Amino acid sequence: MNDELTSLLTELRAGRLEVPEVAARLNSERTAATGDAHVDLDRERRCGFPEVVYAEGKTSRAIVEIFERQIEHGQDCLATRVSAEQADLLQRRFPESIHNETARTVRIDVTSREQRGRVAVVTAGTSDRPVAEEALETLRWMRCGCELIVDVGVAGPHRLPEHLDRLRGVDVVVVAAGMEGALPSVVGGWVDSPVIAVPTSVGYGAALGGLAALLGMLNSCASNVAVVNIDAGFKAGYLAGLIAQRGSS
Amino acid sequence: MNDELTSLLTELRAGRLEVPEVAARLNSERTAATGDAHVDLDRERRCGFPEVVYAEGKTSRAIVEIFERQIEHGQDCLATRVSAEQADLLQRRFPESIHNETARTVRIDVTSREQRGRVAVVTAGTSDRPVAEEALETLRWMRCGCELIVDVGVAGPHRLPEHLDRLRGVDVVVVAAGMEGALPSVVGGWVDSPVIAVPTSVGYGAALGGLAALLGMLNSCASNVAVVNIDAGFKAGYLAGLIAQRGSS
Amino acid sequence: MNDELTSLLTELRAGRLEVPEVAARLNSERTAATGDAHVDLDRERRCGFPEVVYAEGKTSRAIVEIFERQIEHGQDCLATRVSAEQADLLQRRFPESIHNETARTVRIDVTSREQRGRVAVVTAGTSDRPVAEEALETLRWMRCGCELIVDVGVAGPHRLPEHLDRLRGVDVVVVAAGMEGALPSVVGGWVDSPVIAVPTSVGYGAALGGLAALLGMLNSCASNVAVVNIDAGFKAGYLAGLIAQRGSS
Amino acid sequence: MNDELTSLLTELRAGRLEVPEVAARLNSERTAATGDAHVDLDRERRCGFPEVVYAEGKTSRAIVEIFERQIEHGQDCLATRVSAEQADLLQRRFPESIHNETARTVRIDVTSREQRGRVAVVTAGTSDRPVAEEALETLRWMRCGCELIVDVGVAGPHRLPEHLDRLRGVDVVVVAAGMEGALPSVVGGWVDSPVIAVPTSVGYGAALGGLAALLGMLNSCASNVAVVNIDAGFKAGYLAGLIAQRGSS
Amino acid sequence: MNDELTSLLTELRAGRLEVPEVAARLNSERTAATGDAHVDLDRERRCGFPEVVYAEGKTSRAIVEIFERQIEHGQDCLATRVSAEQADLLQRRFPESIHNETARTVRIDVTSREQRGRVAVVTAGTSDRPVAEEALETLRWMRCGCELIVDVGVAGPHRLPEHLDRLRGVDVVVVAAGMEGALPSVVGGWVDSPVIAVPTSVGYGAALGGLAALLGMLNSCASNVAVVNIDAGFKAGYLAGLIAQRGSS
Amino acid sequence: MNDELTSLLTELRAGRLEVPEVAARLNSERTAATGDAHVDLDRERRCGFPEVVYAEGKTSRAIVEIFERQIEHGQDCLATRVSAEQADLLQRRFPESIHNETARTVRIDVTSREQRGRVAVVTAGTSDRPVAEEALETLRWMRCGCELIVDVGVAGPHRLPEHLDRLRGVDVVVVAAGMEGALPSVVGGWVDSPVIAVPTSVGYGAALGGLAALLGMLNSCASNVAVVNIDAGFKAGYLAGLIAQRGSS
Amino acid sequence: MNDELTSLLTELRAGRLEVPEVAARLNSERTAATGDAHVDLDRERRCGFPEVVYAEGKTSRAIVEIFERQIEHGQDCLATRVSAEQADLLQRRFPESIHNETARTVRIDVTSREQRGRVAVVTAGTSDRPVAEEALETLRWMRCGCELIVDVGVAGPHRLPEHLDRLRGVDVVVVAAGMEGALPSVVGGWVDSPVIAVPTSVGYGAALGGLAALLGMLNSCASNVAVVNIDAGFKAGYLAGLIAQRGSS
Amino acid sequence: MNDELTSLLTELRAGRLEVPEVAARLNSERTAATGDAHVDLDRERRCGFPEVVYAEGKTSRAIVEIFERQIEHGQDCLATRVSAEQADLLQRRFPESIHNETARTVRIDVTSREQRGRVAVVTAGTSDRPVAEEALETLRWMRCGCELIVDVGVAGPHRLPEHLDRLRGVDVVVVAAGMEGALPSVVGGWVDSPVIAVPTSVGYGAALGGLAALLGMLNSCASNVAVVNIDAGFKAGYLAGLIAQRGSS
Repeated sequence: MNDELTSLLTELRAGRLEVPEVAARLNSERTAATGDAHVDLDRERRCGFPEVVYAEGKTSRAIVEIFERQIEHGQDCLATRVSAEQADLLQRRFPESIHNETARTVRIDVTSREQRGRVAVVTAGTSDRPVAEEALETLRWMRCGCELIVDVGVAGPHRLPEHLDRLRGVDVVVVAAGMEGALPSVVGGWVDSPVIAVPTSVGYGAALGGLAALLGMLNSCASNVAVVNIDAGFKAGYLAGLIAQRGSS
Repeated sequence: MNDELTSLLTELRAGRLEVPEVAARLNSERTAATGDAHVDLDRERRCGFPEVVYAEGKTSRAIVEIFERQIEHGQDCLATRVSAEQADLLQRRFPESIHNETARTVRIDVTSREQRGRVAVVTAGTSDRPVAEEALETLRWMRCGCELIVDVGVAGPHRLPEHLDRLRGVDVVVVAAGMEGALPSVVGGWVDSPVIAVPTSVGYGAALGGLAALLGMLNSCASNVAVVNIDAGFKAGYLAGLIAQRGSS
Repeated sequence: MNDELTSLLTELRAGRLEVPEVAARLNSERTAATGDAHVDLDRERRCGFPEVVYAEGKTSRAIVEIFERQIEHGQDCLATRVSAEQADLLQRRFPESIHNETARTVRIDVTSREQRGRVAVVTAGTSDRPVAEEALETLRWMRCGCELIVDVGVAGPHRLPEHLDRLRGVDVVVVAAGMEGALPSVVGGWVDSPVIAVPTSVGYGAALGGLAALLGMLNSCASNVAVVNIDAGFKAGYLAGLIAQRGSS
Repeated sequence: MNDELTSLLTELRAGRLEVPEVAARLNSERTAATGDAHVDLDRERRCGFPEVVYAEGKTSRAIVEIFERQIEHGQDCLATRVSAEQADLLQRRFPESIHNETARTVRIDVTSREQRGRVAVVTAGTSDRPVAEEALETLRWMRCGCELIVDVGVAGPHRLPEHLDRLRGVDVVVVAAGMEGALPSVVGGWVDSPVIAVPTSVGYGAALGGLAALLGMLNSCASNVAVVNIDAGFKAGYLAGLIAQRGSS
Repeated sequence: MNDELTSLLTELRAGRLEVPEVAARLNSERTAATGDAHVDLDRERRCGFPEVVYAEGKTSRAIVEIFERQIEHGQDCLATRVSAEQADLLQRRFPESIHNETARTVRIDVTSREQRGRVAVVTAGTSDRPVAEEALETLRWMRCGCELIVDVGVAGPHRLPEHLDRLRGVDVVVVAAGMEGALPSVVGGWVDSPVIAVPTSVGYGAALGGLAALLGMLNSCASNVAVVNIDAGFKAGYLAGLIAQRGSS
Repeated sequence: MNDELTSLLTELRAGRLEVPEVAARLNSERTAATGDAHVDLDRERRCGFPEVVYAEGKTSRAIVEIFERQIEHGQDCLATRVSAEQADLLQRRFPESIHNETARTVRIDVTSREQRGRVAVVTAGTSDRPVAEEALETLRWMRCGCELIVDVGVAGPHRLPEHLDRLRGVDVVVVAAGMEGALPSVVGGWVDSPVIAVPTSVGYGAALGGLAALLGMLNSCASNVAVVNIDAGFKAGYLAGLIAQRGSS
Repeated sequence: MNDELTSLLTELRAGRLEVPEVAARLNSERTAATGDAHVDLDRERRCGFPEVVYAEGKTSRAIVEIFERQIEHGQDCLATRVSAEQADLLQRRFPESIHNETARTVRIDVTSREQRGRVAVVTAGTSDRPVAEEALETLRWMRCGCELIVDVGVAGPHRLPEHLDRLRGVDVVVVAAGMEGALPSVVGGWVDSPVIAVPTSVGYGAALGGLAALLGMLNSCASNVAVVNIDAGFKAGYLAGLIAQRGSS
Repeated sequence: MNDELTSLLTELRAGRLEVPEVAARLNSERTAATGDAHVDLDRERRCGFPEVVYAEGKTSRAIVEIFERQIEHGQDCLATRVSAEQADLLQRRFPESIHNETARTVRIDVTSREQRGRVAVVTAGTSDRPVAEEALETLRWMRCGCELIVDVGVAGPHRLPEHLDRLRGVDVVVVAAGMEGALPSVVGGWVDSPVIAVPTSVGYGAALGGLAALLGMLNSCASNVAVVNIDAGFKAGYLAGLIAQRGSS
């Protein structure tokens, strides 16, 4: 920051840049105002990946505008929590986009970045699938290698060991589980990579919409388990990808 | 009930019993009033085991009086949540009593019932020990066979399988665990006996004094897991003993 | 486990089995992958009863596939939380299946095990009926004797004593109650068998969707009361059956 | 109010009262400022009974001053949640005062009102005693007849019926219970008088400091059960006394 | 109880009654089994008023059967939480029944008891009306005098004093309020009668479906405020009627 | 109050007013009873602004009557949480009314008060817009200057500084944010005016319907942040307007 | 911001300032590092008042160093939540400091700003005094006029009106109340100024450490009530002072 | 796993290993039983780092024994939540151990692994220091480079940017914050590395012992924020180290 600042100021001092130009560069074009929203076009420079659109509560038109602006700037596009109607409209407008119904995502690969890193996404039961798919789509959008291992909940304790080789071969493991949320602890005890635990709202009664699983995961006795919000497949995938890509070359 | 009632009434009708006698037998001597409390001396007849004294908030004198009354009626004695002071006084008054410091219990074996049934008490970590000990003392008071398996929490997943033979050889498994409370689900998936899960208040922060473990256990994906109150070693032991003794001859 | 392991290894050492065969037997055919899910076909061997299908969030096709696989392996089938549509399809595909609308279950008796054990299922009010029915269907699937006693809530305190003989004649009592969840405590005080308490989401306002009943049951002053999740009729029935069948010959 | 207002204004209009006098009477001497606090001396006129001092967080001096002011105005005095030190000082200053250690109350009978009404205070267990005693002291201060029935919790279901005659002979029943708080429902089903339920903080774990009992009582299936705050023996006694004295002549 | 018991037994002893007759009288006709439910026909004898039907989750046919049974036994009928469809059917079957749409109640006056007691039902805002109406209908069914005072919430502090004369003229005040639930405290400070506070689920956000009002009322600094469940208009009315009718002759 | 009282009484004493007149003025015309509700017409005199209609749960007819009564008394009208149907009817009856669909408000400018004060309403994301609009409409009804700054959530930290000049130029800042509710703290650290934080129910899972944001805002480390209820755009706007208009001349 | 930036850059461009100087001014001396902490010396410029020291968890030496640094920069000093030991040391080091024991504050008036604005601080009961005193000390540190009105809780409804003239004469009212937290709503209905409500942790049982009062205040039906954290006397005072000083000249 | 298994079995089949030897290797020496606890000596092989001792609730003797066993096996030692007494004893027994009082840790560097990776640990305020120190000690035990940045909470928004260069130069950022927990979101918006957020129990009232910060962090609008338990400095450090060391070579 200081380097950037000092260098800009030096240029100015030397007369190679003018005041309005420097002021503009310091405050500039990093946000694109669309009708309804402001896209953070600077996000990729700061954080490594472009802004992702959370579709819930947005008009289809707003999402289209954001995608258009991102495509103009050469940024990959991803929208999550997309309704059927929104997806329809997006697919008509962007025929190259990929819609994953289970994940409720739409993404457009604009760049041709190459794949790096490897993440396994594991589910305790079949009902955790949508959350896992959201994580997978996010990883695909990041160009991170990924694979899915389903239905290895702790009530069938022989199922997980069958997959240990695969789990030990990846950079990060994402575990999606509802009910008591015990699976991340068990996985965490078998691997030497970070585990991103994502509680799902699967269950009833004292599951409290995912709070039981969330609390379970936060209290995991395995040291390598970090937690994200309930049903936050996107965030789990994003963090896993970020970590996996650091760890690979 | 009806049988008992009908037979008493028949006796009365036949003149073999008198009214006050029948009224007395119907409303009678099933409670012993001590200074501070009423002992339910009928409990053993109704429920199979005598009343157990919860020592917290009771004077030592009150506990002594209850024990005396129970001994008079030939009932085994057990007090839980006994403070050091209470234990001292009880041991002086009843030298034959057995004090378990970790469990915080005092018990007196009055009858010479023979041992029946077999229960394994399992802990996730060393801090769950006091709760496990309370369960064990309760089982000893019931004359139920019992054994302790410690420190097999899920973060060390190879530790539990080493004990599977023992776990499969008992009538009931009691599992005490704090933090995320995942162990009962894992145990439940390996055995064909009922699992009594007792959450402990071990942990900090989002453990919420045992609530996280409690919720986890209630939402267990294993079908054979029933739950008791947080730190309720006594109740876990009692239920396990009740079930184990039914299941054995 | 060790026995099994040692014997397999001994066979291998002796040349009576080959490496791939042993590896296969150790990691083998215990899970059947269907389109959407993995059935734990080993569950019956480990836990005494086959896996039960939780229908919520599963496609009808997935349930059909699981049932087919279980029937192939000679396992009794049970699905809970079945929607009307799912039930329709299952009944068309398996005309021998039994659909209980109130319980929302479908089951198929594949084996001809004989009935063992005896459980009473008790409700506090008429609204607790669906949960009680789920418990009853589970018990029928287990071939455990069962009977239903309805509407004996504590506000009509003379109603319960009328049934004491029946309650005292069974191996386990399941009590389903909403609102304040007081009935298990009262039942627990009258019987010498274990009581499985299942809180229901019956009630409004401070009933908090069954949490009030759940907390009440966890704090029961009766020593023989274990608790399962809110509305968890299946789990209550399963535990009761497991215990009852141990206790009978 | 309007009557009082109209009559005051009529007096004024007629010249029988002067402006400052009427203004004073309308805004007047109903509060006595002591060093630390303002005593509501008008409370008895408005609400039937004088203000009661909640001692927690007050200096002993402040309580003495309030009592002095109340005695000057011929009002009976009651302080609740009195510490040992406060009680000492109050007893030295007011030798006629009555200190109940279990209830943690100090009261002074200033008036010689005669006793009216009859309330039974019932406890589930011995640990509920302090709350029951606070209710009893409040009733004594109100000069309401009262009696105590202890240790009739639902786990010993034969204990309550022994007292039904007494319970049916009073105007109001106060029931103090912790843990699952089931006793008020059971009592409510046997009597035709109002039941004031007071949850106590007795219990541990999922008792949540009395919240479980509170929720249980609020959801009571008995129609005649009203609830007050956790451990609020004073309020339970006050309400019971108010109702009982209305109902008697 | 003992009296009744002794007298029955004396009759038996004297040969004026036979064993089966006494046994029948002791266990007898106090419950009427309908298709779906058991009506507690003994409720009126024990508690002063007949059982009230909570319609939610019951079939219309079940309610009709209960009403028929109650009418046979000369008991007044009241059903609460009645849906439009249920009300329709009940009105067709019992043309003399009274349906209150706002209160969601249906009642039938079978007896010709005379009116006794007087209760004021007060609401903080217009949205609290349905709860207040349920209380009023309950009071009418009890033949207790009642009146409604609406919209006197504390934000308009001059509105309540206008009604003080009416509030001071009744035996009990019921106060229904949502949001912060402050009105019962304010009313409680002005009157010398018991106040039954009923929190309503009116409000949003941190109102938490009535929990904020419930907690506020439980913590009321006015001594004469007792609380019932959220939206429990029936229970508030029932308790108020019970108290009011005791207090009047 | 006393002044008003004294002066009224002086007039009375002097014979310039008569008793009924004074009594009427003291208790008088401050409330207008409509069919369903009582309008607090005195609100403007006491609190500076007329009563605002919370439309949820009210009939359209009731709102119309209240507006008519307010217009008769020369008061500006505002209704919040207006449904589409209610808005339709209000617009037909009052063609001069202004309906804001996003804000769900209808208002009528009756007076011609001039604009005073200046408030900035800031949102973290686009989904917070409806709450912000409700605040803006309230400010317009108060004739307070206002401007909207959208989509400056903390994940794009360069976006807020662009608006600092505008934020520093107003009297009060309203900040609407969901999820973690961090924006008010950040804004609070940049400005010297009060910040009214309004949590929104935007988010999922552990957002708990706005509770997470609410707790975050209450714990703000910035000293100048006050909080209102979840989604309470009206209250945020009202408070901001009240403060802004005091601070300007 | 931009102005400041542009002007700095213009100076630089014109050669009137050098690069290091501008960089220094942009990143400069706004934070003073002490041994343990960083003091935000720029706070006064940005927010109008200097940083306030929250003493809990800080060493006395750290507070002394922060005060010294602030005094060097001519800033008034305030520390809250000061323990007796900390206060002692601060008073020895800064004899001119003012220690308020009840408020647990220490402050030093360094500047000679003149008093502006007027705030009334109101308490419901005597136990709310410490929170009120913390607010008062904060107001004194801000040089804002303030006065205290104690013990006007809603259970004594005649007490508040006596103070209406005073309440109506100030710019802002702070109301501190525990238990049900009803007082801010009542005050809010009588005044036309903003009300800052501060819930206190006064009460027991269902008061939940101030949560009941907090929820009550957030749901206040009075439009002019904003809320701060439980026991946050400092923040209530700070906000009130900020608003009051804006509104006065 | 399968590879290991197959190779062992192949050795066995070939006669190069004997049955007992293979069985032993499969079930073997991975756990060391001390008096009180079982050390998971296999942890390092499975998970990359040795087991860490949570000292709370353990005897000093038990910790000594575990350390001895770990040293025998050439494993680095770390104990967290160490009391002063425990630390004393450990330091006497292991003079080479390093005790960090603020962090409450004791560690012994047994191996001479070289440093890899770089983590910045950031605190919002001085009170978050102990949690940050626990994270730092964990990182030192892992031989991960680390640095501490204190007191950059969001209320002083200019403080964070001064450290951006350092934050952008590390592999992972750990952020410890209490109160509203907003700092991780702000940091997350500036960096392209993963952020591990650790809520602290710093704050009062509605901070709810760290729950407010926890919820805030879980709902962070920054995509790169993962969360661990309240005050879980160890787990935050561990995860950060695990990630940082993967990402560096």
